[in-house]
Amino acid sequence: MRITDIREARVSIASDIANAYISFARMDVSVLAIHTDARVDGRPVVGYGFNSNGRYAQSGLLRERFLPRLREADPASLCDESGANLDPFQVWDTLMANEKPGGHGERSVAVGIIDMAVWDIVAKIEQRPLAQVLAERFGDGQVDARVPVYAAGGYYYPGKPVSALKEEMRDYLDLGYTCTKMKIGGVPLEEDLDRVEGALAVVGDAARLAVDANGRFDLQTALAFAEGLEPYGLRWYEEAGDPLDYALQQQLGEHYAPPMATGENLFSHQDVRNLLRYGGMRADRDILQMDPVLSYGLVEYLRMLDELRRHGWSPRQCIPHGGHQFALQIAAGLKLGGNESYPRVFAPFGGFADSTPVEEGRVALPEVPGIGFEDKGELMAVFNEHLG
Amino acid sequence: MRITDIREARVSIASDIANAYISFARMDVSVLAIHTDARVDGRPVVGYGFNSNGRYAQSGLLRERFLPRLREADPASLCDESGANLDPFQVWDTLMANEKPGGHGERSVAVGIIDMAVWDIVAKIEQRPLAQVLAERFGDGQVDARVPVYAAGGYYYPGKPVSALKEEMRDYLDLGYTCTKMKIGGVPLEEDLDRVEGALAVVGDAARLAVDANGRFDLQTALAFAEGLEPYGLRWYEEAGDPLDYALQQQLGEHYAPPMATGENLFSHQDVRNLLRYGGMRADRDILQMDPVLSYGLVEYLRMLDELRRHGWSPRQCIPHGGHQFALQIAAGLKLGGNESYPRVFAPFGGFADSTPVEEGRVALPEVPGIGFEDKGELMAVFNEHLG
Repeated sequence: MRITDIREARVSIASDIANAYISFARMDVSVLAIHTDARVDGRPVVGYGFNSNGRYAQSGLLRERFLPRLREADPASLCDESGANLDPFQVWDTLMANEKPGGHGERSVAVGIIDMAVWDIVAKIEQRPLAQVLAERFGDGQVDARVPVYAAGGYYYPGKPVSALKEEMRDYLDLGYTCTKMKIGGVPLEEDLDRVEGALAVVGDAARLAVDANGRFDLQTALAFAEGLEPYGLRWYEEAGDPLDYALQQQLGEHYAPPMATGENLFSHQDVRNLLRYGGMRADRDILQMDPVLSYGLVEYLRMLDELRRHGWSPRQCIPHGGHQFALQIAAGLKLGGNESYPRVFAPFGGFADSTPVEEGRVALPEVPGIGFEDKGELMAVFNEHLG
Repeated sequence: MRITDIREARVSIASDIANAYISFARMDVSVLAIHTDARVDGRPVVGYGFNSNGRYAQSGLLRERFLPRLREADPASLCDESGANLDPFQVWDTLMANEKPGGHGERSVAVGIIDMAVWDIVAKIEQRPLAQVLAERFGDGQVDARVPVYAAGGYYYPGKPVSALKEEMRDYLDLGYTCTKMKIGGVPLEEDLDRVEGALAVVGDAARLAVDANGRFDLQTALAFAEGLEPYGLRWYEEAGDPLDYALQQQLGEHYAPPMATGENLFSHQDVRNLLRYGGMRADRDILQMDPVLSYGLVEYLRMLDELRRHGWSPRQCIPHGGHQFALQIAAGLKLGGNESYPRVFAPFGGFADSTPVEEGRVALPEVPGIGFEDKGELMAVFNEHLG
């Protein structure tokens, strides 16, 4: 089989939300379709990819470097031994040829977008959901039928900081979520603690509420918030400091016993290895949130999981950033701990299949081959509009 | 003053060289011109920027994210208090607005290109060489009149590995260089040691020959080469392992007493801080090679130098990667230890002013305002051709 066409476009996912670090008013993503001459049920197989939020579209890198390498490659060099399907590892090596080591950002997103589309093709040609393919190739053959998801949000509402936050949390529970996450760090500690108590009054159980500082704190602030937050025993305390400040993370762990979380801004297995070596993260409770799309795709994510195992971690401690169907398939097939979700923002790139609503805080996988895009009407409409 | 026009283009710097990691057959760079309404001697001031080799052009990121932010900014917000010149720190904050932390690659190059052009403008409006501006703002007011440069090359020559390498080294000495660097790691250790001995026979003094593995070795290979190289007491042993594998670097330092060097693939002060925290680099002998263009420009490079000072390092231990005039000005103005140079490749982006040949291993700074591009005819011709 061979790739017959590759189409790429840039799509806005602007929203009026902000975290403690950036505004999402001009956020966009790249969407990608890879057409092949492989046929299933008489129709050519097409794989789709896009990047999750936070790191912008990568049209330039796709057009200037990575898609040309894919287009120019000998088709046989991209296939598995049978010649009937793509080999994502071969594709990855082709994409990363003549790329220097280090500097893991932006290109990691561009490669991740392509990798997503490649795995979509692989599973579609195998005529199975991607989770099943992954469980058989890399796992124990069994797929988690339902994946825990949590509602990430908990924004700031000027003028009614607590009451509007409580409404938002109630909305998430009504949507079927049981666990939620809220922003902290945008206001002084005491105000954030009022917000935490407001959210807890709705969610009910501290083990069902996480907080996210989005990497904004210095050590002193991180420790002050740790002291204020610790008595609640929250689900986790996320990205207190700069994602590369492993010493801050390590110090935080010395002073904060409940779970910590980080990793969404680490885009290579080398960076994750440094977090494991130096960050003082605790394998029995802490959460790792690397996003397979932002970090060179599933091929690199598998290397991250290898690093985790070498350091004594279970994949169950991983709950990827991103809220997309790709990470959901990976979570189900490789038995991660769950997946993020962004109700009501980043649609239709966030969210899961139309046939699988969130129920009791979990979401099932659709019964369609590939990543499941074909069971998500609004997303397919975007693909068709921009890539058709 | 205000920016009146920004032009950008992508230019090939393809060469037939290869290091142990990548081929440069399709390498390209971005060139940039920022036009202003500031006038010197009746003519509008224009600043130029480009990226150094190894990380490709960044047209996409420039066009999609960073140049729009510059164009849309309130002109006053980009200026210093007088309103008569740009403030590179204000420009930097404008460029990096709504960028998440972590993920330092590619965008670090795009921002570095802009930063170079901004500093070119700043010095041109001050009607002085950039080095003088930097010495007065950030140094002791004194500029190093001549900066040590070394000839980076030492390629592999199939069929005549030693004789052709010796010719190459002789050529560098004829060009005025006294220190050189050669590739290692592309062949087995014994063959590389033959090459080292060949090069030493020409260069004469082990303190004048460095070796570069380009990040290719695992720990075992790095240590094997260390054992083989140590008796020579070379100038430095560069990038033995992956640039983010600080544990490997630290282990290497436990076993290799002569100087080590690394840093060209670290693009943020956070990454450099991790190298200093965890890499076991020794402030009394080791060399740090961060490239100010590849790593968010001089604004971020100043933060790196702050980290160095905090960790007890002198700027004299810095010898930037890149071989460009921007790093040369920085080296002279901030009193770094020297600068890289690539004789006969990457022209005209590598190399220095027409009026300042390399003499006795050092190069002087041209007597022109800014970075000195106007005293480098071939480079100005490229700017005029692509940005005119």
